[in-house]
Amino acid sequence: MSIETQTQHLFLRAALNLPVERPPVWIMRQAGRILPQYRALRAHFPDFKAFVKTPEAASEATLQPVDELGVDAAIIFSDILVIPEAMGLDYEMVESKGPRFPKVIEHAADIAALDAGQIAADRLEYVYEALRVTKKALDGRVPLIGFAGAPWTILAYMLEGGGSKTFSKARRFLYTEPVLAHILLQKITDTTIAYLKGQVAAGADLLQLFDSWAGELPPAQYRMFAVPYLAQICAAIPEVPKTVFAKGAWFALEDLAEVPCQIIGLDWNTTPAFARARVGSDKVLQGNLDPCALYADNSTIELATLEMLRTFGRQHIVNLGHGVYPDTPLEGVRTFVNTVKAFRYDSI
Amino acid sequence: MSIETQTQHLFLRAALNLPVERPPVWIMRQAGRILPQYRALRAHFPDFKAFVKTPEAASEATLQPVDELGVDAAIIFSDILVIPEAMGLDYEMVESKGPRFPKVIEHAADIAALDAGQIAADRLEYVYEALRVTKKALDGRVPLIGFAGAPWTILAYMLEGGGSKTFSKARRFLYTEPVLAHILLQKITDTTIAYLKGQVAAGADLLQLFDSWAGELPPAQYRMFAVPYLAQICAAIPEVPKTVFAKGAWFALEDLAEVPCQIIGLDWNTTPAFARARVGSDKVLQGNLDPCALYADNSTIELATLEMLRTFGRQHIVNLGHGVYPDTPLEGVRTFVNTVKAFRYDSI
Repeated sequence: MSIETQTQHLFLRAALNLPVERPPVWIMRQAGRILPQYRALRAHFPDFKAFVKTPEAASEATLQPVDELGVDAAIIFSDILVIPEAMGLDYEMVESKGPRFPKVIEHAADIAALDAGQIAADRLEYVYEALRVTKKALDGRVPLIGFAGAPWTILAYMLEGGGSKTFSKARRFLYTEPVLAHILLQKITDTTIAYLKGQVAAGADLLQLFDSWAGELPPAQYRMFAVPYLAQICAAIPEVPKTVFAKGAWFALEDLAEVPCQIIGLDWNTTPAFARARVGSDKVLQGNLDPCALYADNSTIELATLEMLRTFGRQHIVNLGHGVYPDTPLEGVRTFVNTVKAFRYDSI
Repeated sequence: MSIETQTQHLFLRAALNLPVERPPVWIMRQAGRILPQYRALRAHFPDFKAFVKTPEAASEATLQPVDELGVDAAIIFSDILVIPEAMGLDYEMVESKGPRFPKVIEHAADIAALDAGQIAADRLEYVYEALRVTKKALDGRVPLIGFAGAPWTILAYMLEGGGSKTFSKARRFLYTEPVLAHILLQKITDTTIAYLKGQVAAGADLLQLFDSWAGELPPAQYRMFAVPYLAQICAAIPEVPKTVFAKGAWFALEDLAEVPCQIIGLDWNTTPAFARARVGSDKVLQGNLDPCALYADNSTIELATLEMLRTFGRQHIVNLGHGVYPDTPLEGVRTFVNTVKAFRYDSI
């Protein structure tokens, strides 16, 4: 698909701030457990990581929501934790509990022992292959999104060894070992840049950075330990539009305005008016219906979706304010997508 | 202790917006695992709930941080989950995991079966007795804080059956069963009012409402399902100053400005300038050092504390932005408290 054809896609036109008749819609975690065909596919892989590492399977999971829901973009099925693994910090995915790292980062020597940059990114050939297979199968129907975790979020997993209620181990590290924290963040950043360049070479049309634990940091720390690395990554990959989704980082929107990305993702706490006043007029906003709204009846979902469309106005890519929850009724998801697809800006 | 004597206490003068030479300081979860004497006392009670229900033990835990750290207020040692239990929904405290409710609220009949108001609050005599014993032992040294969970947070526990990563069961209930949600919130509110009146009668000098899961709701839902109940509770108890700590509810500060409380608690994400611009000039602000700062060395803690004091200015009660973490070094806690106690407004 040439650049020219690509930019005719609604999703990429919206991402580049070109005129569109309606906002595009996709859903974080659309490739996943909400779809029966995903659950059937997943049943063949008792091990989640084996699934992620099988390009044909990852590609099939990526295509399913495009076929089933008619979303305006595909997002490659993978996990943000492939980066720590590629750097030498292995993890297990514990069913219904989440990731667990048998070994965590504690000392300077642990950080020194990590690989970084191209040598680590080269271990992620299975993701590039999944992107190539998917790109071919999509045959230009919709653009393909690549992604990675943001450096602060990856550091948090590396220090905590999994999810956490407070992330106090990772957060305390920024106070007690600020120099080591910066060294580790730079190694993660170098790896992420090489990885995302590989994704673009393999066919990703847009890249999203997920800063899932952004909301855990005080504003001054987010400015110091997160924003500069997001900016480095975005600046290093001028070839495609970039989205930064920093969940809970309402307090950092002025800082994110300076990051050379085109799109800012919003969680369901942050109103578009609040965000727009802080990120300026150039950025496109992505989001942000509460994923719990999709448990309601169809007319409630439709009203909530239309209200969201009204408050965002133009320069909007529709999504939920967080990944869709695995037990969301498929009918609710369809109502959400179809309400957006039936909407036209000139009707308001 | 007469009203006249009470208002001579630094903490109550600050709470009532009267002139003070420095801000008072206390710490959420100060009565707890950071103190070796608490851990020794706790060792006598394998069952957490038996501990909470023994007034002499709860009182001793309440007094320990006053003696050991020299904080400017005591807060009664108890748990916000005594309310669901008193309403007929029992819970267990699972060591190092948190609370678990064997039975949760699912249907209208479950809500109808709950007791509410005075009949439920009367079951909390053990808390009132702990307050009376503590008040006597304090002998006017520092004021005594009573507390309860905010109705939305209590509803969340009643529906989830414990903590949760997403609180999606509780949140979806607001979309799918809004009328039942309001009925349940009103029953919790009625019980909380009777309970807090009982706490004041037993000697509480100030009351704090903890809305721990406030940040999980979209702004419109927080306005609908949380704020009116906070307002009801505060309006029903004019006798003492009230603090509302709605963690993560930065988006609701304009709404909280209308709640008849004197003090608004801030988490570590929210700067005092942001909050002050939204709550107006009357409220006192409480908070908000990142609890993780207390893991740092003493000079880092001192600098961070002084920076916080500078940014808040007057109308400030010092605290952390969240409960102190159980493994925080006692020396860090002392440095925090002593830095505040050595500070004088006229020195800046």
